[in-house]
Amino acid sequence: MGEIGETVQTAEFAAKAEKLDAADELAAKRAEFVLDEVVYLDGNSLGALPANVPGRVEDVVRRQWGELRIRSWDESGWWTAPERIGDRIAPLVGAAAGQIVVGDSTSVNVFKALVAAVRMAGEDRDEILVDATTFPTDGYIAQSAARMTGRTLRPVAPAEVPAALSGRTAAVLLNHVDYRTGRLHDLPSLTAAVHAAGAVAVWDLCHSAGALPVGLDEHGVDLAVGCTYKYLNGGPGSPAYLYVRRELQDRFDSPLPGWNSHADPFGMRSDFEPAAGAPRGRVGTPDILSMLALEAALEVWEGVSIEAVRAKSLALTDFFLECVGAYAPEGGVESVTPVAHEERGSQVALRCADAGEVMKALIERGVVGDFRHPDVLRFGFTPLYVGFADVERAARVLAEVLRGDGPRGEALR
Amino acid sequence: MGEIGETVQTAEFAAKAEKLDAADELAAKRAEFVLDEVVYLDGNSLGALPANVPGRVEDVVRRQWGELRIRSWDESGWWTAPERIGDRIAPLVGAAAGQIVVGDSTSVNVFKALVAAVRMAGEDRDEILVDATTFPTDGYIAQSAARMTGRTLRPVAPAEVPAALSGRTAAVLLNHVDYRTGRLHDLPSLTAAVHAAGAVAVWDLCHSAGALPVGLDEHGVDLAVGCTYKYLNGGPGSPAYLYVRRELQDRFDSPLPGWNSHADPFGMRSDFEPAAGAPRGRVGTPDILSMLALEAALEVWEGVSIEAVRAKSLALTDFFLECVGAYAPEGGVESVTPVAHEERGSQVALRCADAGEVMKALIERGVVGDFRHPDVLRFGFTPLYVGFADVERAARVLAEVLRGDGPRGEALR
Repeated sequence: MGEIGETVQTAEFAAKAEKLDAADELAAKRAEFVLDEVVYLDGNSLGALPANVPGRVEDVVRRQWGELRIRSWDESGWWTAPERIGDRIAPLVGAAAGQIVVGDSTSVNVFKALVAAVRMAGEDRDEILVDATTFPTDGYIAQSAARMTGRTLRPVAPAEVPAALSGRTAAVLLNHVDYRTGRLHDLPSLTAAVHAAGAVAVWDLCHSAGALPVGLDEHGVDLAVGCTYKYLNGGPGSPAYLYVRRELQDRFDSPLPGWNSHADPFGMRSDFEPAAGAPRGRVGTPDILSMLALEAALEVWEGVSIEAVRAKSLALTDFFLECVGAYAPEGGVESVTPVAHEERGSQVALRCADAGEVMKALIERGVVGDFRHPDVLRFGFTPLYVGFADVERAARVLAEVLRGDGPRGEALR
Repeated sequence: MGEIGETVQTAEFAAKAEKLDAADELAAKRAEFVLDEVVYLDGNSLGALPANVPGRVEDVVRRQWGELRIRSWDESGWWTAPERIGDRIAPLVGAAAGQIVVGDSTSVNVFKALVAAVRMAGEDRDEILVDATTFPTDGYIAQSAARMTGRTLRPVAPAEVPAALSGRTAAVLLNHVDYRTGRLHDLPSLTAAVHAAGAVAVWDLCHSAGALPVGLDEHGVDLAVGCTYKYLNGGPGSPAYLYVRRELQDRFDSPLPGWNSHADPFGMRSDFEPAAGAPRGRVGTPDILSMLALEAALEVWEGVSIEAVRAKSLALTDFFLECVGAYAPEGGVESVTPVAHEERGSQVALRCADAGEVMKALIERGVVGDFRHPDVLRFGFTPLYVGFADVERAARVLAEVLRGDGPRGEALR
């Protein structure tokens, strides 16, 4: 396309972006985040800073820790934070209160959930199925859970899970959204298939919670885990969470029964008696600074419906694919993210040559996504703070970089 | 003792406190903490706030997260924080660099250490010994580790450990200082006994690190864990640490092999290949806010020798026992902390009737310790910020409360 054609087209898309931004009912939420001139499309790795977090953290450090000190375990609600914050996450993933507890990393929660799932399934079921395309840590931890419970681990592509299920299957660990491709897996039907086989369904929600409706209760998910630093904007390494469906809580037999999960934690008893309800998923002393930063971050969800978030997310990724299709040079990139809405999460993954160098050039030009080995550019769209003008600009800059305009030529040499 | 006698005695001890404070080479360190008129003797539960922490945390939140966002994983050193901060703790526990990694809770680290220890010991050793008087979480986690590795757990009083060791012993989990009584166990000789039996020694340093020399390398300890929110002042629920002796690192086979412990974490490989060295003890994404608050907190150790800390700690607890002995009414309290220096940590535990109510009254009068079920008053002495005048005042107020002077009578009704 010639320069004039390009300019006309750019003007068209810019006008469309303006219209979409004007009609965006979530647009005002952007002001609740600390943002700058950068187009930040890496919220699927680390969410941007909510504006109310710094003040809250300062209060936690200076007053709660500095002045009240040990009294804050009661007076500032530190002790009950894991379940209180779990209850704030609950509506975002379609869970009633009392089933989610916050704490530890996602990896540690995968271990708790999977070992507990295997124990629930009973002795005669000797196989664990795991998403063969999973984010690696789930696979490594599943391997350890299998080894330590005497089960066999079998990696299976999510689409093959129904065929792979059998009377041997104890538990199935799946990702709701694939971290690399952004593919959304069919949680309701896969959960139903797992249940039909008499097995326990464990879902990893890292790349879906806060971006789209999950419906944990509605779809009868057994156990779920997720991180809070992506679409939930909890901050770097903020604690993960664990969901145990209410009817299964009494059978949740944790491999990490720390003193925080005891029915009477300050009784200092030598025999272990597990707490009732969500606190049974706790382990040791919660990391209060990270946890209360997360609590503040979750306040931005006040008045936001996850359905509105999903609608905007799809509009953003649609528009990005449309702009990239129009702007990018022929053969420059290929989307590995599904076109069908029901198969798409809130990110677009583009395969391209020299993906690592292309991402560096994008970042130099103020468009931040990330690179996943070996050839994928990932762009995450957080509906609470990404707008349509951002999307148009990101696609435009990507096209410039792919064409080798300006500094990118340098960067690639 | 009559009122005049009391006054004379009080003046004597106050004068002694003044002299001791004047000669205290660590006295200047107190200014590096945020303190008020309260006598804070609960640093063995939650250390006071180091004055440089709030500013550091603000920078981490506002600039590193808020402005640099995802770039901070490299540019702000987030990714390498677990081992970098481990190296800051190392000299405080007598370890050379490269053997300590920070992250997760103490409970989770006990699980890693104990399972790995059992695996190092080999298949033919089927018993784990655990301190029968341990802080409960170690016992609960040890029970889980035993169950998941097919071993038997046997609780043994620390003094009985040498007699209980045998060719069946795989690993022994001990506390360096008893959380309730403040008794210091003989780490060198117990470790030597464990080794003589061919077993693996795992030490919990929660109540000793930062209060007295540990000598991990010198005494050949195999694995150790500890928290950082007591004498290391890392803040509420700050991450714990794991020590794996260098010669054992290649054999450290973690039950929690998360992606952070992979040799090539960003390779996103489906097969697990453990990292070399201390990072092998990592699991999931580190909780950066809590972790970097800890890093700032550790800067107060600049120029402090742990030997000087130990000398002051013993002087503080000696003086407290002396003042309590002189001030407290006959039969009011009984120390359960050993008199011998080589058997004493950095706390004094006093048994008394109505201990819960007595502690409440003390706190109302500005002397903060804590209560441990059923009848123990705990007073922790952090040499970096507790002075001898504090000690005299604490003992004096305790005696008043025990005598029922003033508001305590109310409090106990």
